[in-house]
Amino acid sequence: MIGIVGGIGPMAGVDLYKQIVENTIAATDQEHLPVLLASLPNEITDRTSFLLGLTDKNPASALARVVMLLNNAGCTHVGIACNTAHAPQIYEPMVALLAIMGSRVELVHMIEEVIRQITLHPAQPQRIGILSTIGTYKTRIYQNRLEAEGLTPEVLDLPLHEALPQRAIYEIKAANTHIPQQPVDLVNEAILHLKNQGADAIVLGCTELGMIEERLDLQGLATFNPNLILARTLIERTFPHKLKHVLERG
Amino acid sequence: MIGIVGGIGPMAGVDLYKQIVENTIAATDQEHLPVLLASLPNEITDRTSFLLGLTDKNPASALARVVMLLNNAGCTHVGIACNTAHAPQIYEPMVALLAIMGSRVELVHMIEEVIRQITLHPAQPQRIGILSTIGTYKTRIYQNRLEAEGLTPEVLDLPLHEALPQRAIYEIKAANTHIPQQPVDLVNEAILHLKNQGADAIVLGCTELGMIEERLDLQGLATFNPNLILARTLIERTFPHKLKHVLERG
Repeated sequence: MIGIVGGIGPMAGVDLYKQIVENTIAATDQEHLPVLLASLPNEITDRTSFLLGLTDKNPASALARVVMLLNNAGCTHVGIACNTAHAPQIYEPMVALLAIMGSRVELVHMIEEVIRQITLHPAQPQRIGILSTIGTYKTRIYQNRLEAEGLTPEVLDLPLHEALPQRAIYEIKAANTHIPQQPVDLVNEAILHLKNQGADAIVLGCTELGMIEERLDLQGLATFNPNLILARTLIERTFPHKLKHVLERG
Repeated sequence: MIGIVGGIGPMAGVDLYKQIVENTIAATDQEHLPVLLASLPNEITDRTSFLLGLTDKNPASALARVVMLLNNAGCTHVGIACNTAHAPQIYEPMVALLAIMGSRVELVHMIEEVIRQITLHPAQPQRIGILSTIGTYKTRIYQNRLEAEGLTPEVLDLPLHEALPQRAIYEIKAANTHIPQQPVDLVNEAILHLKNQGADAIVLGCTELGMIEERLDLQGLATFNPNLILARTLIERTFPHKLKHVLERG
């Protein structure tokens, strides 16, 4: 059974679940996969606030409790629908806690899977533009992993990153299901900047950004949606014969 | 914590979850409610096939197992995102099994809540058109409860019911997330028939139909979406101060 740590934000967990449904070969209800989505947003501190030092409370312990809930309910593979939660400052203590708590689930690491897809992409992109929260940006989650693969991360200057993707992400969180045009415009502006800086690919490195992918002007750049990649990996690891052929855009 | 029995179909459980998010007063991730969505579609027999005698396997036992999973994970209130599962032939044995298994959750009964909203509606509709699966239709789930309230159910003749809503529902299930125009047209035709028969309200009595509500031509009739009503009741019973003011259309 697949487990999803959702609620961070609530619609990002839903989006991951939808991506699993959409990428599963199934024509009837019964042909779909067993999935448990645990959304306990009230217990999980804002990841970016923690990474910026605005709160001392590491969301790692609440995240570990949610993973254990999924473990105890019978999940074998778990994905966390939040890029920022994969910052080593959060992810590593969470993994340590899970070992102590006796978790047996296999965690699928969203960022590692995105990096793998970038290295496998037929267009062989070299300069990878990153859109994310300030938490993901400042902890260099993507930058470090890309550089380790010999690729060049492209990011905006900090003031621009705050004014465009960071602002857009929190506007999407506040809007929930009916997302207005403003965050779409902000992200489009960010994409243009990254393209002008030389980026030949874009990582929508925050689950909220994946939710507006179809409304974005991606400037023809190869685009990587971490929630889509995580969904496909979760299917591949549990029920590989049920995985649809590539749906990826870009 | 709110529990959702999803997976029947998969997108109906997602829709119920989305309706909960959309009807919750919240501007940050942390202000959203704790929800667990269990989607185990592979174990649950098609409800309509059972009610029509096409299979002997009552989905009640698999449904009870999913409710117990939610109970054991700490849910206090549970909703089942499927109208047909509320047929007494399924619902009553499920409740009996849950008592034996020691369930402590409060089940929120979708159909009872829809009936309550119909009787409270300011337009006081009297002739209630019902769109549903053949399973819900033939077991008279809505018809019996409406008549008990002194209201008149309006349904299509069986051949028309099979050709329009029943067909549309299974087309929506097969399509998953990208629903084509054909089922929308079929349901619009069904609504016109019901209006011509004298209906002054419509119940979208299958969770798949609620998913296309915004694309339907509802002919100005008062409309009741069971997933929306169930979502609002679940919030009301758990965190009443978080319930948004009425969002209902129609």
